[in-house]
Amino acid sequence: MKIVKENHNKLIIDVLSSIGLSKKQAISAGSIMSYADEREISTHGILMLEKYVERIKDNTINKSPEYVWEQKSNSIYTLDGDQGMGHFLGDLAMKKAIEIAEDKSIGLVFVKKATHYGASGYYTNLAASHNMIGFSSTNTMPLIAPTGGSERILGNNPISFAFPRKDDSPIVLDIATSVVAAGKLILANQLGESIPKGWALDKHGNPTEDPYEGFEGGGTLLPIENHKGYGLSLAMDILTGILTGAGYGSKVKNDNIGFVMLAINTDNIMSEGEYNERLNDLISMIKSTKKAEGYNEIFLPGEIEQINKNKSLQEGISINDNLYVELKKLITSLGLSPNKYFD
Amino acid sequence: MKIVKENHNKLIIDVLSSIGLSKKQAISAGSIMSYADEREISTHGILMLEKYVERIKDNTINKSPEYVWEQKSNSIYTLDGDQGMGHFLGDLAMKKAIEIAEDKSIGLVFVKKATHYGASGYYTNLAASHNMIGFSSTNTMPLIAPTGGSERILGNNPISFAFPRKDDSPIVLDIATSVVAAGKLILANQLGESIPKGWALDKHGNPTEDPYEGFEGGGTLLPIENHKGYGLSLAMDILTGILTGAGYGSKVKNDNIGFVMLAINTDNIMSEGEYNERLNDLISMIKSTKKAEGYNEIFLPGEIEQINKNKSLQEGISINDNLYVELKKLITSLGLSPNKYFD
Repeated sequence: MKIVKENHNKLIIDVLSSIGLSKKQAISAGSIMSYADEREISTHGILMLEKYVERIKDNTINKSPEYVWEQKSNSIYTLDGDQGMGHFLGDLAMKKAIEIAEDKSIGLVFVKKATHYGASGYYTNLAASHNMIGFSSTNTMPLIAPTGGSERILGNNPISFAFPRKDDSPIVLDIATSVVAAGKLILANQLGESIPKGWALDKHGNPTEDPYEGFEGGGTLLPIENHKGYGLSLAMDILTGILTGAGYGSKVKNDNIGFVMLAINTDNIMSEGEYNERLNDLISMIKSTKKAEGYNEIFLPGEIEQINKNKSLQEGISINDNLYVELKKLITSLGLSPNKYFD
Repeated sequence: MKIVKENHNKLIIDVLSSIGLSKKQAISAGSIMSYADEREISTHGILMLEKYVERIKDNTINKSPEYVWEQKSNSIYTLDGDQGMGHFLGDLAMKKAIEIAEDKSIGLVFVKKATHYGASGYYTNLAASHNMIGFSSTNTMPLIAPTGGSERILGNNPISFAFPRKDDSPIVLDIATSVVAAGKLILANQLGESIPKGWALDKHGNPTEDPYEGFEGGGTLLPIENHKGYGLSLAMDILTGILTGAGYGSKVKNDNIGFVMLAINTDNIMSEGEYNERLNDLISMIKSTKKAEGYNEIFLPGEIEQINKNKSLQEGISINDNLYVELKKLITSLGLSPNKYFD
C-alpha cells in the first residue's frame, strides 16, 4: 500500500489537530514524520502516530506549550519546551542554532522538558541545508545497562552529524548507540525467531538469543561495542540530560526529554569551493574502494535513505498492511474519513 | 620493571632533545606520554618513543616548527602546525580552545600539518580541568574499509569527550572507531593465536580469524558495529581532515594529520552546583546498577585509567621487559646513560 507524500503529511496534521494539538506543532510533526517515512526510517514515522495521540490525550505532550528561551552566552541558548511536541521543539531549536551560527559562527542550543523528537537526522540535515555542519542528540527512555550492569539505566541516545555538499544531498549520519532498536526484539518475539548473541542481555546480565528475555522479559539492549557504546550513550546523556536540565539516566520519561543542537558555519572555516573539492575527493575514495566479496556498491551515511526518498517521491510512501489497518481505525475513531488520505 | 614518573618524563625529554627537538616540544611530548603510561594507555606511551625518534631524524616531525595561527571567527581558530610534534600542537590547540571558551563560551580549533598526538583523552581532560566540556578527535593512518569495501580508506579516528566533576576526576571517554587496535592483531600473530571474527576482514573483505590476514597481510580493521563505526570514522575525518586542510582518507600520512579541539564553558550553561549535583546523581545511578553475573563493579569512562594512575604514582610506571631492553638500546645509541633513568 502506497500513499502520496501530500496525503501522508495531511493525515498526520489532521489527526494531531483533531485532538487539539496546536497547528504549528502539528505541521512540524507532519514534516518530520514524512521526512522519516519517505526515507524508510519507519521507526520514526507514522508508525508512532497512535502513541503521540495517546500522549497528547493524557497531557504527556502539551497541546499549546508556553516554551521559554534563555540566552546563556553569545553562542548558547536554552529552551524550556514546556512538554510541547518534540518535533516542533527540535525544529525550533535547530533553527535557532542555525540563526546563531549565521552571526556567531557556532550556535549551540540545549532543550529541556521536551518529548520524543523522532529522527535525529532531520535536524542535522536542516543545518546542512543552510551550508552548516549539524550535530544533534536526544536522550531516550532507559534501554541499556552500563557495561557490567543488568538494569536499564541509559537510553540508546542517538548521535547525528550532517555535512553539507554543494549540488548534492548532504552526508547524514544518524545512529543509535545500541546495536539494534528494541523494535527488532519485539518483532523477533512475535515471529518466534531467535536473535544473535550480540543484541541484548537477559535480566541477569547474561547474553541471550531469546528476544523475549532480551527485552520484554526485563533484559537490556547491548550498546555498540560494549563499553564504547556505553560511553557514547553516557556522553550524549550528559549533553542532553544533565546540561539541559531535562531528565537523565533512568529518570528519563516521555515528558522530560532533553536535546542538544549544534550548528557550525563552514563559511568561517574554508571557502565553499575548497571544502567541496576536498569532500568530493574523499567521497570518490570511498565510493571507488575495492569492493568486499558480495558487495556491488559502497554507500555514504544517509545515501540509502536518499535513494529511498527519491523512490517514495515517485511511487509514494510505503505503508505495510498491518499499519494501514491500524491507521484507518485511528482515523475513524477520531471522526475523520480515511478516504481523504488513501485511495 | 617500574620507573618513577619523574624519570619516565625526563627520559622522554632527554631522548627527544638529544636529537634536536625543540625543548618546548619535548616537554609537551613528555607530559602527554607520561599521562598515557601512568594510566596504562600503553599504546600511546613510551612504546612510541623509538618511532618518534625515527620521524624526527627523517624530518617527518619538524624539530622547530614555525606554526601559524589564523582567526576564522570569534570562536574558531585554525593552526597550521608546520609538521611539529603532535603532542605539542595538540596541547597548544586545546589551550587555545579553552582560552577562547573562557571569553566566548565556546572555543573551536582546527589543526593541519600535524603529526601523531598520542592519547586523545589528554586534551579533553585538559578542558575538563578548566571546568569545561572537552571534545577532541584526530585522523590516523588508513586502517579500516568503508562498509562493503576491502581496502584501508579511513583511520580508526578516535572520539574523546571529557566532562568536569567538582572534587573528583573528570569523566573521560576516549575510544577508537575500530573494534580493536592494529597492535592486538600484530601481537596475536606473534603469539600464533587466532582472533575473534568481529575484529578484522581479510584483503578480500571476508571475516577472518587469522591475525596476519586481518592486518599485516593486507586486511582491514572492522569499525565498531560496522556501518555505525564507519560513519563515525568518516564524520571524524571530515572534521579533522577535510575542514582543517590536513590529509584525509587514504591520503593521511604521518606528516599531514589533522586535529579538532572543542571546549565548551559549562559556567555559561548552568551553575556549577546544579551541574555537579545532577551529574553526581547520574553517576550514582550508574555505579549502583544491579550487577551482571560475574561483575563486582561498574566503571565510568576513564575511571580504570584513573585507578591505574593512582597506582603508578605510588608504585612507579610499569615497563615490560622487552620494552625496557629496547629503551636501553635506544638511550645508549643516542649517547645517553640508561642509569640516569632506571635504577
